[in-house]
Amino acid sequence: MVNWFWKRKPQRRNLTLRSKGDTGGATRVDFAELAPELNRFLGQAAYLQLGYFETLTRGIRGTHELARKEALSRAAGAALDKHRGIVEIIADLGDDPTEVMLPFRENLDAFRRKTIGVHQEETLLSVYLTAGMLDDFYLALASSYGETGERVAAILRQDDRGGEIVSIIQQTIESDDEWRSLLSMWGRRLVGDTLLVCRGALRPGRLEADDTRIEPVYTELMGAHARRMDAMGLAS
Amino acid sequence: MVNWFWKRKPQRRNLTLRSKGDTGGATRVDFAELAPELNRFLGQAAYLQLGYFETLTRGIRGTHELARKEALSRAAGAALDKHRGIVEIIADLGDDPTEVMLPFRENLDAFRRKTIGVHQEETLLSVYLTAGMLDDFYLALASSYGETGERVAAILRQDDRGGEIVSIIQQTIESDDEWRSLLSMWGRRLVGDTLLVCRGALRPGRLEADDTRIEPVYTELMGAHARRMDAMGLAS
Repeated sequence: MVNWFWKRKPQRRNLTLRSKGDTGGATRVDFAELAPELNRFLGQAAYLQLGYFETLTRGIRGTHELARKEALSRAAGAALDKHRGIVEIIADLGDDPTEVMLPFRENLDAFRRKTIGVHQEETLLSVYLTAGMLDDFYLALASSYGETGERVAAILRQDDRGGEIVSIIQQTIESDDEWRSLLSMWGRRLVGDTLLVCRGALRPGRLEADDTRIEPVYTELMGAHARRMDAMGLAS
Repeated sequence: MVNWFWKRKPQRRNLTLRSKGDTGGATRVDFAELAPELNRFLGQAAYLQLGYFETLTRGIRGTHELARKEALSRAAGAALDKHRGIVEIIADLGDDPTEVMLPFRENLDAFRRKTIGVHQEETLLSVYLTAGMLDDFYLALASSYGETGERVAAILRQDDRGGEIVSIIQQTIESDDEWRSLLSMWGRRLVGDTLLVCRGALRPGRLEADDTRIEPVYTELMGAHARRMDAMGLAS
């Protein structure tokens, strides 16, 4: 299903994604034509954050250990803050945030369901990894929307409290190779679906032609993903 | 079980609770001796807000309607903001928030379980009503803790986005007398348990003697509760 992406050899073009804290506009030109209309961008970005929030909160109830409950709440709160920030931007532009998000609910809910594992650790890893890739991707897209894009970028760059999620994962795999292997597999499994979400976020039409152009971006996203996996001690 | 409270006639003492936005200190003197040590106050106040957050989020997943999902998220976010604010105060005082909250987990979790209904509307009503009473109570207690108390009071006075919960309840009962009767009963049922939480928040010891002194406060809390019920169209 994701053949369109990884069967081709990565091209060596000098196209870089903005990383958090990097305010350069390297991808501006390349993305401008692929970037969807503004509300399509904002609606998806806002709904994705609401989804992270919802996924993170579903584990809180079943978590007995108070310190972990706190860590989950902080991460959930960070996602909710981002959601609220983008919703505010939509409202400032005179649109109804609910209506702007609604068209993306079905697809993004389906994506989110795939990121929910049997164990809480899988689900936490999902949020950390998919939010990592998608926030980077939306950050890159943001450069196409002028001042509004800058506001979105500032929100996406806020701390997502992912450090505590990473600690939980690290504690889980530290002394247990079975967990390490399970979570490595889980992390790899997420990449394809997440890239499809990225692809779905772009301006519709001409996708075959665009895939070639956008490929280096995906390569960057996968590179950053692999670095996140390595840093946690998971095989990427 | 709550005989200690409502079998007595309410006394007519001129003791008033601070309402949100009222910065007068009418209850200062009376509460000072009953107020628990600072960490006992902060730990409970922080854990209660975490509990509202958790209760509000449990309904989000099952909510299909996006506008309602948004309303629940906003209310949950408001509780989480209050939780985080109080946690920050505990940390600023050099204590570990998790440890400060831990002694109250069991009792407050048990209380919270009783506030969860079969239907989402019951649970939402629970949060709105119990947070209403308990925030007022903690606001009154806060006046005993000087500058730290002022910080807590400012946090508790923040908007809890209860207005949207009220709208959901009103929509539910508007054209359905069975719902109105069910939710009226549910709302009344919560008062006893909530007052027990208030009582448990005070300095331990001498409770029989203190009940007389604190009774007018409970009367005020119940009055405010009745006004909340009436405003929604529920029989108090």
